[in-house]
Amino acid sequence: MTANRPCGVWAPAITPFRQDLSPDPERFARHAHWLLANGCSGLAAFGTNSEANSLNAGERMELLSYLVEHGVAGGRLMPGTGCCALTDSVRLTSHAVRLGCAGVLMLPPFYYKGVSDEGLFRNFAEVIERVGDARLRMYLYHIPPVARVSISIPLIERLLKRYPGTVAGLKDSSGDWNNTQAVLEAFSASGFDVFAGSEVFLLRNMRNGGVGCISATANVNPAAIHHVYENWRESNADELQDEISATRSVIQKYPMIPALKAIVARGSSDDGWATVRPPLVELTVEQQASLATDLDGHGFSMTVAGRNEESLAPEV
Amino acid sequence: MTANRPCGVWAPAITPFRQDLSPDPERFARHAHWLLANGCSGLAAFGTNSEANSLNAGERMELLSYLVEHGVAGGRLMPGTGCCALTDSVRLTSHAVRLGCAGVLMLPPFYYKGVSDEGLFRNFAEVIERVGDARLRMYLYHIPPVARVSISIPLIERLLKRYPGTVAGLKDSSGDWNNTQAVLEAFSASGFDVFAGSEVFLLRNMRNGGVGCISATANVNPAAIHHVYENWRESNADELQDEISATRSVIQKYPMIPALKAIVARGSSDDGWATVRPPLVELTVEQQASLATDLDGHGFSMTVAGRNEESLAPEV
Repeated sequence: MTANRPCGVWAPAITPFRQDLSPDPERFARHAHWLLANGCSGLAAFGTNSEANSLNAGERMELLSYLVEHGVAGGRLMPGTGCCALTDSVRLTSHAVRLGCAGVLMLPPFYYKGVSDEGLFRNFAEVIERVGDARLRMYLYHIPPVARVSISIPLIERLLKRYPGTVAGLKDSSGDWNNTQAVLEAFSASGFDVFAGSEVFLLRNMRNGGVGCISATANVNPAAIHHVYENWRESNADELQDEISATRSVIQKYPMIPALKAIVARGSSDDGWATVRPPLVELTVEQQASLATDLDGHGFSMTVAGRNEESLAPEV
Repeated sequence: MTANRPCGVWAPAITPFRQDLSPDPERFARHAHWLLANGCSGLAAFGTNSEANSLNAGERMELLSYLVEHGVAGGRLMPGTGCCALTDSVRLTSHAVRLGCAGVLMLPPFYYKGVSDEGLFRNFAEVIERVGDARLRMYLYHIPPVARVSISIPLIERLLKRYPGTVAGLKDSSGDWNNTQAVLEAFSASGFDVFAGSEVFLLRNMRNGGVGCISATANVNPAAIHHVYENWRESNADELQDEISATRSVIQKYPMIPALKAIVARGSSDDGWATVRPPLVELTVEQQASLATDLDGHGFSMTVAGRNEESLAPEV
């Protein structure tokens, strides 16, 4: 990890929608500040768990600008900017760089399957060349269970060789520790920053040269996850890790994004948070009740998870 | 099939790019007119083979408007308008309806995998409600090998019940004849129009109540495919079908989209056609030569395939 580069716990901040399914910038900014006050080092806005691909480019840029205009420093932001269309990726990435974002999290173009590393290299290279800004820090986003397009180790190697400094790291959401370990072994010593895609792998990632995690559940449990990050060298680190893994295992019995929104809705006494955009569907009343029971049984609530829960509640 | 509704052979028209990867409307319109003069009943512009998802919404609308402004009747157009973001799908679909397009070909939102029929229903329903135009004819686009999100028979049933008339048909690119047959058996008698996603299934589709095909290779072999469509009730129909299937089998030994572009480049003596956008990669020189040899050996060329090949060549 290089000084001043993103590290620690970053949340793929969930995106609130109004009843008419339009994005809600006020709730978004409120959640962003709550996350930053409660253990997140930064926000990977417009990740998978942000329903980013359910937003168009204009909506994403408006929300990002709103955050910066409302007190979120660019250095705390690593927005997702990788789209199927090269021209959208360039537009979003340029916008993020202009706003002073610490980095961008780049999905590969994910419509065509079975594409070659050559084609993916050209995609990322075109984005870098067209953005043409030395401030760009690109974090590759490897999430084969969803994108169904992978970022291979030879591809990373080629990109790093051609664009050292600009190609800055990777988020590994493969769910496969062996892959994370292989990436760490290949590149972490040279300053390529690897984020685990789930806090379940946070301790292992830190012990093997990684820099933190970007995890869905950081939306609701940031303080405890940050506590593992801060104490990964301590003797009780495994125990702390077990606790956050257990919390995640309760949440992930439910569809992740609707569950996160239901938890934030409950924790902030703001039902508006529960809304998702199609093709996702919010939790049923039964699922909400069951999730609440499960989390209560586990001793978890947003109030406990956050040191500063008040800023999450809507202003009256 | 209802009178004046799309039927026959429709081409997912390939999209030409300039060397700088920007879309080339002039070449696009030239190809469109060549297709319509050589056996295509219409154009499913912005399909998978059009690299539609490698274009952003603005680029797609500009190209579509250009076609209409340059003599392609709206009734000959069924553009792809289904995107991951609801707001993009609504925008593109509204634009297509305003231009008088015969229909739109709707991909499901394809980023999230394992989504429910309820979520997909809501997506399509929102598009229909928001476009709010009785002229809309929506053709569902089932292409699980690429989208990795399916359009199930119960989903079609529910959409047809809620939006009869508007939900007009389906393109089945599953490559699974059993699925096409099941859709035909369930819905074709009620006026739901099924297009095979490959000319390989054209004859079977016609014999079972379908209305035609929307096929990649209609970009290069439209006249012969149209000949099967016109003669499907004739005694030599199986023989004609075997011929177009054989031509397709030669082409699909190569990556389909780059191969189609290489064939059009060769047939029009216009190398500019070969360009693809990342993540696709054009054929290598060796692949181009091998494809040419294979097609020559098969007795195929764009000149033979087209009755009116001159309109494909660039104007000097």
